[in-house]
Amino acid sequence: MSEAEFRSVVGVFPCQVHWGDCDPAGIIFYPTYFRWMDAAAWSFMESAGYGAKRMRAEHRAMPLVSAECRFLAPAEHGDRCEVRSRIARFGGKSFVVAHQIVRSDGTPLAEGAETRVWGRYADGPGTPMRGEAIPEAVKALFRAR
Amino acid sequence: MSEAEFRSVVGVFPCQVHWGDCDPAGIIFYPTYFRWMDAAAWSFMESAGYGAKRMRAEHRAMPLVSAECRFLAPAEHGDRCEVRSRIARFGGKSFVVAHQIVRSDGTPLAEGAETRVWGRYADGPGTPMRGEAIPEAVKALFRAR
Amino acid sequence: MSEAEFRSVVGVFPCQVHWGDCDPAGIIFYPTYFRWMDAAAWSFMESAGYGAKRMRAEHRAMPLVSAECRFLAPAEHGDRCEVRSRIARFGGKSFVVAHQIVRSDGTPLAEGAETRVWGRYADGPGTPMRGEAIPEAVKALFRAR
Amino acid sequence: MSEAEFRSVVGVFPCQVHWGDCDPAGIIFYPTYFRWMDAAAWSFMESAGYGAKRMRAEHRAMPLVSAECRFLAPAEHGDRCEVRSRIARFGGKSFVVAHQIVRSDGTPLAEGAETRVWGRYADGPGTPMRGEAIPEAVKALFRAR
Repeated sequence: MSEAEFRSVVGVFPCQVHWGDCDPAGIIFYPTYFRWMDAAAWSFMESAGYGAKRMRAEHRAMPLVSAECRFLAPAEHGDRCEVRSRIARFGGKSFVVAHQIVRSDGTPLAEGAETRVWGRYADGPGTPMRGEAIPEAVKALFRAR
Repeated sequence: MSEAEFRSVVGVFPCQVHWGDCDPAGIIFYPTYFRWMDAAAWSFMESAGYGAKRMRAEHRAMPLVSAECRFLAPAEHGDRCEVRSRIARFGGKSFVVAHQIVRSDGTPLAEGAETRVWGRYADGPGTPMRGEAIPEAVKALFRAR
Repeated sequence: MSEAEFRSVVGVFPCQVHWGDCDPAGIIFYPTYFRWMDAAAWSFMESAGYGAKRMRAEHRAMPLVSAECRFLAPAEHGDRCEVRSRIARFGGKSFVVAHQIVRSDGTPLAEGAETRVWGRYADGPGTPMRGEAIPEAVKALFRAR
Repeated sequence: MSEAEFRSVVGVFPCQVHWGDCDPAGIIFYPTYFRWMDAAAWSFMESAGYGAKRMRAEHRAMPLVSAECRFLAPAEHGDRCEVRSRIARFGGKSFVVAHQIVRSDGTPLAEGAETRVWGRYADGPGTPMRGEAIPEAVKALFRAR
């Protein structure tokens, strides 16, 4: 990534590979990683003061522009993991969250990224979302010191 | 079920067991049946004139009171199935949808039921739901002739 | 339940309602509770010495006979919960796991039960499962003292 | 993509946005697209003669190297869609499946790609997978005429 990469704090989201997260090959069904990355992104926001309740009260959401993941090693039922999330880049109305998924023995399992919009329901819940300029105060919450 | 059982039309919801619906035992992960029953219930409503768009426009939803399922035979990746749904009973504000899940070779895979409330958001989307008396006109839509 | 009810230890499985676990009504999509109950059942087994690795090594699984759940209060995105699991009954080859799902503020959200078979792959992974008599030593692991 | 891009037949996988596939914003929860792409990839294989039963009998699977998706327009509950899949590239042991997700009114909803390995369980189900050279005969099955 470019020099413009953001020096971000790192969020940690613990998770575990459950029986139903695996497929007949006995390893994790890959969309599970995207479910984890989504949950990790919300958890990361919460750690910066934007928890679910506040997001709801302010009519905010974080719709996706794109998502990607590389799968490095297969995970199995019972594996304990964590998703380490950081802001890779802040744009005007969008931002990139980079995620590393690591097993408890230190093995990197997957590396992914989500590009999201800082969005608000134009007219309350159930109405379309519109992107908003990300305030400097919000960016500051994620800046590593 | 009692004599009061409702003589219902039957809805048919086709579905298939996908790779990711199965677990390391190589058979369907059981919550998949509940996902299917939920989708079948919405499809059944649509067949009676209450499609997703109309439900949204009228601020309606069908929150659950309870759900249950008996698993009769294991389903495998690739199996084509259908959910056959009928109204087992209409109460004042609630109703019971009975579902049979059958494989394309005729094998019954599962039998379940959902008890649901005929609900409406008290104050638009995002606000709490309240049960409403089910109109006779709605019941009539599901009555077998 | 009858006097024959088993005096069981209680397992605790912590979980949280994620964004993707909720539906357009803004509350938990009900099959999520069954996903949690399944994960809680495996976690409960692990607490008694039958973790995922051991189950795999011994070619064991716990196929379902039936599952049911009553929904008592709606859960929302961000809610922290726990599933409290106990053995309600041991049969010859099957057993009933009863689950209570409680929010961190003490509110009971749901109550469910799974009837499962103590199963083993007849001929290794990928082959059909067969129920086996549950050994007294296994039952003892779950008996409250 | 390069000139080496493969001239592929196109598979079509019909699907629909179900209630439980959506999130509190009332639009599709994005990992759903990856679930669809996975199911579409298996369906595409089936259309070329490699259905689930055959894949199982030959101890084959298609583990992922990476997956990505760009989200172009929000999908809502009830939307009928199709995933159009083609082979974008065949490598030695891996291949890229490109997917377009289009709503029934012609609106492109998402564009994604999966890089997969042509794999076989080294020692039967439950054992690790190993990549194998993709036979010319398999490539020919997907070549547009």
